[in-house]
Amino acid sequence: LFPLYVSVISLTFRFFSLSFPHFVSITTYYYTHTYTHDTIRFQQQQQQTTAGFPFAGNTGFGAMSAHIPDDGYCLTVYGPHVGVAADGTVGKVERSGIDLIDTCCGSAVAASNYVDSITNGGRDVTMQIQTFTDFQQNAVQELILPHGKRLADADIDGKRMVELPYALYDSQNMLLSEIVKGGSTGIKRGLALLGGVQINTGPDTPDYFVPLRFDYMNYRGDVIDDLLPALTGAGGADDSDDDDEE
Amino acid sequence: LFPLYVSVISLTFRFFSLSFPHFVSITTYYYTHTYTHDTIRFQQQQQQTTAGFPFAGNTGFGAMSAHIPDDGYCLTVYGPHVGVAADGTVGKVERSGIDLIDTCCGSAVAASNYVDSITNGGRDVTMQIQTFTDFQQNAVQELILPHGKRLADADIDGKRMVELPYALYDSQNMLLSEIVKGGSTGIKRGLALLGGVQINTGPDTPDYFVPLRFDYMNYRGDVIDDLLPALTGAGGADDSDDDDEE
Repeated sequence: LFPLYVSVISLTFRFFSLSFPHFVSITTYYYTHTYTHDTIRFQQQQQQTTAGFPFAGNTGFGAMSAHIPDDGYCLTVYGPHVGVAADGTVGKVERSGIDLIDTCCGSAVAASNYVDSITNGGRDVTMQIQTFTDFQQNAVQELILPHGKRLADADIDGKRMVELPYALYDSQNMLLSEIVKGGSTGIKRGLALLGGVQINTGPDTPDYFVPLRFDYMNYRGDVIDDLLPALTGAGGADDSDDDDEE
Repeated sequence: LFPLYVSVISLTFRFFSLSFPHFVSITTYYYTHTYTHDTIRFQQQQQQTTAGFPFAGNTGFGAMSAHIPDDGYCLTVYGPHVGVAADGTVGKVERSGIDLIDTCCGSAVAASNYVDSITNGGRDVTMQIQTFTDFQQNAVQELILPHGKRLADADIDGKRMVELPYALYDSQNMLLSEIVKGGSTGIKRGLALLGGVQINTGPDTPDYFVPLRFDYMNYRGDVIDDLLPALTGAGGADDSDDDDEE
């Protein structure tokens, strides 16, 4: 399977450079990418959603896997994103044609403020539990609520915005793992799951990706191999991590 | 404002040809496209979701409008999609590299089957109201439930699959209108809303779009002009509909 892995790794970066130009990296991030082993035919599927949570859910995953070519493998990329402004501020980013240096990811920061209003107090008591027209954001807030203490602790060192994307990733990884488990029999040949944090910077500088999980699994959802060391270079002689650093 | 309109119309088709290649036209369709008037700088934002409903909601719309360039206008394209197979079957489509001629849109057909199980009976009584990992699909089903009789009537003539995307459009248009109303003050210069039904065909034939609404509105959410006749040619001497038909 080595050639597949190499393809996955090289395609991953080609994929990112194709798929994450800065102008679409705003609210979303549940990308799925399918291709056939021999022809390396690209077929990109995107299921985008608030703050990066895979809200298209079981049905979205089922549709995605049904649309993998019959002889095709699948690479799914997921995770939250976070801006880093030119002055190093985490959680904000410059945007082309816009004077305001605004929050990034806005949905995540809003959810963080909600969580802070719970852990620190100050939130008005209300009878309004849910708004249907904003249910994704409500779900984001609920899904990171258990990280309240963790975020508050990071706040003490002024690192709440650094901790936030990792907290989001943990919740997203749990949700995506559950969805993949439920739909793994629909995977045709195999699935590579690449999860991590996308780092957005201003218009004149490149974006980055911090890989946190890179599993190759078969159609039964069994993890066949952990590809993460091949990306990060941790504990291996494989120098393919150069691709990541350059 | 005429040059803007012309830009919107020509960009609309350029936009579709860029943004709706068949391989990404699977579960989604809430596309937003922003550009500045003079430079016509493209900035494409996509918020994709199950069956075409704008589930990114108020927060997604707010993020989108915050990311319009300060001197920019915005074109938002939304609607369901439906496959038409080579033999004329509505609700199915051929897909490159996949032998099975499968349902399209799968989420919509699944929701239609759910609605049919209510109007025609036959659904098991259950205590399982919601599954969090599939809440978008649950919402799709609830949002088209009021069209149950309309779809059943169409069934009599064998036209359920033809009626389905129009029923979906009506529900989506209602939801998007509510979201735009709530977020219109975030629009920087103006917003063109293009709603309709995307028609997918097999890999060797082009896709089509049936425009059903094309409103230009200001940042207060007031409709300034109905651009639909300029697209469809209805009631006007404007022959720009040629673009639509060819």
